[in-house]
Amino acid sequence: MADPPRPWTLHGSERGPDLLICRARFDTLENPRNGRVLRRTVLETPDWVNVVALTPERRLVVVRQFRFGTGAVTMEIPGGVIDPDEDSREAARRELREETGYTSERWSYLGCVEPNPAFHNNLCHHWLAEGAVRTHELKLDPGEDICVDTVALDEARAAVAAGEMRHSLVVTALARVIDLRSHP
Amino acid sequence: MADPPRPWTLHGSERGPDLLICRARFDTLENPRNGRVLRRTVLETPDWVNVVALTPERRLVVVRQFRFGTGAVTMEIPGGVIDPDEDSREAARRELREETGYTSERWSYLGCVEPNPAFHNNLCHHWLAEGAVRTHELKLDPGEDICVDTVALDEARAAVAAGEMRHSLVVTALARVIDLRSHP
Repeated sequence: MADPPRPWTLHGSERGPDLLICRARFDTLENPRNGRVLRRTVLETPDWVNVVALTPERRLVVVRQFRFGTGAVTMEIPGGVIDPDEDSREAARRELREETGYTSERWSYLGCVEPNPAFHNNLCHHWLAEGAVRTHELKLDPGEDICVDTVALDEARAAVAAGEMRHSLVVTALARVIDLRSHP
Repeated sequence: MADPPRPWTLHGSERGPDLLICRARFDTLENPRNGRVLRRTVLETPDWVNVVALTPERRLVVVRQFRFGTGAVTMEIPGGVIDPDEDSREAARRELREETGYTSERWSYLGCVEPNPAFHNNLCHHWLAEGAVRTHELKLDPGEDICVDTVALDEARAAVAAGEMRHSLVVTALARVIDLRSHP
């Protein structure tokens, strides 16, 4: 294995604007390769969670909603921000119930990813909920408008392949449960 | 299928700060479900690209680098920002050559994902480069310090499973080529 890259020296850190979903910070760092000092953005972001929820018939629970970044309706799995007083499992249970009305008694942790280590400092945790059934009404935030549906796992695989389900964090969660290969 | 969610009415849009990697914009939108008007952040971001590069021995080309968001060294596949005068294939060739010194004559498009449609407006395109060989010296930006290595595909799969390779956009690219399932 090649030598690992060296850590960068932090020369300073400056508070940036509150972006509602995260807060900007500007770090000044020295590149150990050439001594160059650079200003870089860090978006301080709370951890996120999302849920691969399967019904007793092994259908995937999906949500359709308008997304502000792309200005379009997406198909995704339920998920959201982990509250300060929660662990990721509690947040997974809450988001599944609030966004879809589904609950489950069989939870398995599927690991986590870094949404983008280049500028986010957070993780997104993935949970699997099996035997999920609709037991509650939706409890949406004022800023949400969500439609709930279920699709067969083969349909979910096809939706990813066709680019109809393409939120990166949805794909990383589904990849733990569905073989998403498109190239031999 | 359930009724799809309705589009939100845009009441206004306000320029936000330049964050170096993207520019913030604040949109004011009306939720069609309840008429509530909300302010939401959009991070205007250029499209990105990354590359699953395989050597003639089917080893994966990986880069190790210090990442400013997490403040830690990551293992990833090469990639970066698509320049305004490039298409994603040209950017994939350029990033592979600049970050790793590898080039390839066998390129296949693996599709794209939305890094985060909740607040980014961009796509990340995935390319596969087969038969990749080291032909050039690295050509790093002043703000980069990158170590290049190769790993067997089984090692790459194990690294994802162990959380040693967990940049979400690396995982979405690899999922097109490697079966990443961890749950039966």
